[in-house]
Amino acid sequence: MSRVVKLAVIPGDGIGPEVVAEAVKVLDAVTVGSEVTFEKTPFSLGAGRYLETGDTLTDDDLAAIASHDAILLGAVGGVPGDPRLADANIERGLLLKLRFDLDHYVNLRPSKLYPGAAGPLADPGDIDFVVVREGTEGPYVGNGGAIRRGTPHEIANETSVNTAYGVERVVRYAFALAERRRHKLTLVHKTNVLVHSGGMWKRIVDAVASEFPGVDVDYLHVDAATIFLVTNPGRFDVIVTDNLFGDILTDLAGAVTGGIGLAASGNINPDGAFPSMFEPVHGSAPDIAGTQKADPTAAILSVALLLDHLGLTDEAARVTRAVENDIASRDGVRTTAEIGDAIVRGVQA
Amino acid sequence: MSRVVKLAVIPGDGIGPEVVAEAVKVLDAVTVGSEVTFEKTPFSLGAGRYLETGDTLTDDDLAAIASHDAILLGAVGGVPGDPRLADANIERGLLLKLRFDLDHYVNLRPSKLYPGAAGPLADPGDIDFVVVREGTEGPYVGNGGAIRRGTPHEIANETSVNTAYGVERVVRYAFALAERRRHKLTLVHKTNVLVHSGGMWKRIVDAVASEFPGVDVDYLHVDAATIFLVTNPGRFDVIVTDNLFGDILTDLAGAVTGGIGLAASGNINPDGAFPSMFEPVHGSAPDIAGTQKADPTAAILSVALLLDHLGLTDEAARVTRAVENDIASRDGVRTTAEIGDAIVRGVQA
Ligand SMILES: CC(C)[C@H](C(=O)O)[C@@H](O)C(=O)O
Ligand SMILES: CC(C)[C@H](C(=O)O)[C@@H](O)C(=O)O
Repeated sequence: MSRVVKLAVIPGDGIGPEVVAEAVKVLDAVTVGSEVTFEKTPFSLGAGRYLETGDTLTDDDLAAIASHDAILLGAVGGVPGDPRLADANIERGLLLKLRFDLDHYVNLRPSKLYPGAAGPLADPGDIDFVVVREGTEGPYVGNGGAIRRGTPHEIANETSVNTAYGVERVVRYAFALAERRRHKLTLVHKTNVLVHSGGMWKRIVDAVASEFPGVDVDYLHVDAATIFLVTNPGRFDVIVTDNLFGDILTDLAGAVTGGIGLAASGNINPDGAFPSMFEPVHGSAPDIAGTQKADPTAAILSVALLLDHLGLTDEAARVTRAVENDIASRDGVRTTAEIGDAIVRGVQA
Repeated sequence: MSRVVKLAVIPGDGIGPEVVAEAVKVLDAVTVGSEVTFEKTPFSLGAGRYLETGDTLTDDDLAAIASHDAILLGAVGGVPGDPRLADANIERGLLLKLRFDLDHYVNLRPSKLYPGAAGPLADPGDIDFVVVREGTEGPYVGNGGAIRRGTPHEIANETSVNTAYGVERVVRYAFALAERRRHKLTLVHKTNVLVHSGGMWKRIVDAVASEFPGVDVDYLHVDAATIFLVTNPGRFDVIVTDNLFGDILTDLAGAVTGGIGLAASGNINPDGAFPSMFEPVHGSAPDIAGTQKADPTAAILSVALLLDHLGLTDEAARVTRAVENDIASRDGVRTTAEIGDAIVRGVQA
């Protein structure tokens, strides 16, 4: 019984192609000879493509990508301050457009301090939590505008849009995840200031909690949550939070667990109506592009999330174990490809 | 030539009265025999007052407070989850109302790692920066609302309001501060997502920068800024940012520099049209209220900011030096009053 998975691959800009090359090597290694085959379609998207053609993401691109079973993305974004990109917004027009149009309402971002990984904390303790970041609402909706732009009387507003529908589905996902993990869920918001959106999040978490009596629930304001991330990250199991707070917390969490070079993510549409997309949390880092200095581990761990999402749990576990072993035995400086090769060997072992 | 400063004192809730008592002791000690006298008027405000009278901040309270030269505030807020406070919002109705109605557009939050203070970072380096947080705009304006509240069709929106007027004045303040410090200013925002508000902030910073050619300017997305706060906090001198990002960054900065028990703040109206307000960054911590476990240092450093604001720079420096010496010689557990007494002795020395 063989299975074919159609995978859209978007290497993107900067270090994206380098880290994706290693991720694909690992994906190939872990599935060689198995009953699942990945049929990969590359998509040339990002700042590079925009500079060549003026297109960010056409309707045809979107339709073609949507016809796949899953997506692997490297990183997108040009050199900061490049004047030719002044009117482009690759983040909004490509990355966020994919997340929104493919209804990736769960932005799943695990944070684990692997033995051997060096983080900035003197006494980190055991860190192993997952941030479930809402992916299709909040301040990210793009409902903003300005009047009298460029004058001393300019007013620029941004509206955060939050729906019970959107919040409940991601909260439910987070509770189910907590039930499979250490049975602890922390809502992070800013209910004392954002009383309407925060109040709704709080009420929905309280309501869904009654269906998950085995899960302990607590609440933290986002400012307090950042304190705990550096003073007691071990207190967290599953964090559920809005799009913007999730963005901030997961970069900080990445730093605390040894750097953004290790942080993987899945943009998930749990309903399966659209393909889910897996990507490292880091950006395109154009300053080191092409130098083989990038760490492909985050992209490779994103492949583990992809495999897990597809139900290929054994394969996912093999990738994770190979990464763990690699991190535990790191010393000296290696190239992007050397790290990828080492993890490939680990997967084959 | 004697000078009288009319000081409104709002001890507030929880540990507020305890830490304010120590702050006032230090204020008295540093001004005894000097040509300045502080005439203090206590105001009973906070969750306690609300529970007794149903009032949060009346127009009369506000007018009375506004007739003072400056304000010292401890902390306000009741026990989280207290059902009697369910309909109150002490934060919005009191603390934010004071900041907004008294036009505290500069929320000044210094972060310094004092020798002897124990932070969570293994290798913190020298940390000495100031966050200039906008205090009267952004997502804090309270322009939100919900429809179909409590139903599966609820929609809850929050609008961040940003004006060129409001941004320019705080940016100008931050540049002037950077010019008196290490000549470095970092704008923190999320321009790639919040394109309208972030775009305006960026344009205004770029425009004002041309008037301060001696100040180096850089920009970080808020998520990246949290990474640098734990991996390289020494890179920061002055950070200028919006109300919400400033809230988040300063709690994290407080943690990184030895805990929120040391973090002071000033809510400043630089024009002098309204009294400025000085308060520790920490909250009312009702769980330890009345136990003499709270650290009054943040409240005492807020007094130093108050003195500095009033032009009493010698007195401010004496308080800061006494705090520095106290932190450097800390060992063992002391009560709130013991810490206050030690700093009083330092001020007298
Ligand atoms: C590039 C940017 C739009 C994106 C975000 O803010 O979501 C990134 O920071 C992330 O976390 O994936
Ligand atoms: C209590 C709360 C409204 C306040 C804020 O968000 O500004 C606090 O967190 C602070 O930083 O002073």
